[in-house]
Amino acid sequence: MARTAGSHSDITGPKVRAAAQKLFARGGYAAVSMRAIAAEVGVQVGALYNYTPDKQTLLFELMRDHLEELLTALPVPAGDALAQLETFVSFHIRFHADRPDAVFIAYMELRNLDEENFITVEALRRRYEDRLENILRAGVDSGAFAVQDTKIVTLALIAMLTGVNTWFRESGRLSLDEVVAQYWDMVRKAVGHTA
Amino acid sequence: MARTAGSHSDITGPKVRAAAQKLFARGGYAAVSMRAIAAEVGVQVGALYNYTPDKQTLLFELMRDHLEELLTALPVPAGDALAQLETFVSFHIRFHADRPDAVFIAYMELRNLDEENFITVEALRRRYEDRLENILRAGVDSGAFAVQDTKIVTLALIAMLTGVNTWFRESGRLSLDEVVAQYWDMVRKAVGHTA
Repeated sequence: MARTAGSHSDITGPKVRAAAQKLFARGGYAAVSMRAIAAEVGVQVGALYNYTPDKQTLLFELMRDHLEELLTALPVPAGDALAQLETFVSFHIRFHADRPDAVFIAYMELRNLDEENFITVEALRRRYEDRLENILRAGVDSGAFAVQDTKIVTLALIAMLTGVNTWFRESGRLSLDEVVAQYWDMVRKAVGHTA
Repeated sequence: MARTAGSHSDITGPKVRAAAQKLFARGGYAAVSMRAIAAEVGVQVGALYNYTPDKQTLLFELMRDHLEELLTALPVPAGDALAQLETFVSFHIRFHADRPDAVFIAYMELRNLDEENFITVEALRRRYEDRLENILRAGVDSGAFAVQDTKIVTLALIAMLTGVNTWFRESGRLSLDEVVAQYWDMVRKAVGHTA
């Protein structure tokens, strides 16, 4: 009986994506061949093309799906602006700490996206940034926050929070809960909220 | 008359380093061959080896020299902790904005350093972080700042400030001076200083 493309993809797809993500994060997109990805999965290189047309599509789908997952997982705003901001900070740190390879690729491999794919990925990233900026605007409107330029503060806070990934280790002196608490203290102050 | 290695390096060295930096930043270290670097410089690949023993040494020296230049350029602390912190913030943003390729490589290619080189580079990075942490400690001691953990705040602020490189463009709506002023406002608040 012929195996359908669908059932083949269901089995191989996640393995191919996991292998590509691991190898892209370790060596960089440009240095990784489809042959190397196939070897990592344990299939012939021809089998990869049942799943993906090319390496660019693999990279794009990894980055797109990472950002779509991020947007889907982000809690719906609830409570006042301060509560929403606290939820955002905790969510951002925890979501990214769980996915170091995906985060590394999302930042590093923008340079290797084709223009059309870059535009799609940037639009998704912008949607995520807008979620934070909306919280900051609400806080400014209600008088809870004092920030000059909500766009700049949005970009600054995201860089600060994502930076946790460059140094946090589960085995380190601080638990992730402690890290979240400390970053929340800084963010709360940075937006001009005095408890 | 035989050309000395010294005089040869004096001429070719900076070109080789500039070419390597450009190509590493664009395509990633692992994807760049010595042959590609030679082609970018406009010499035969053999000529590169008069200047550097291998690609790893090129990468290491780029990263080491970037951090040594950073440490040398960092102003000697002057004034109280608040003044020192303001100087640090302005310096950090401006130094990094001037060197996007070097900064990109310094963060992205740590994974490709040999262990011994990694240790050297990490020690230099730590020395830079210590300079900021010393300012934060002085501010805590004098009562000017209220921060919980000076190490965490150091890492958070550096990530935030370096993040300017991911979005700042000379042609954008804000000048670098305006960006520095806004980040300084955030940093000042984040360390608990209420003006």
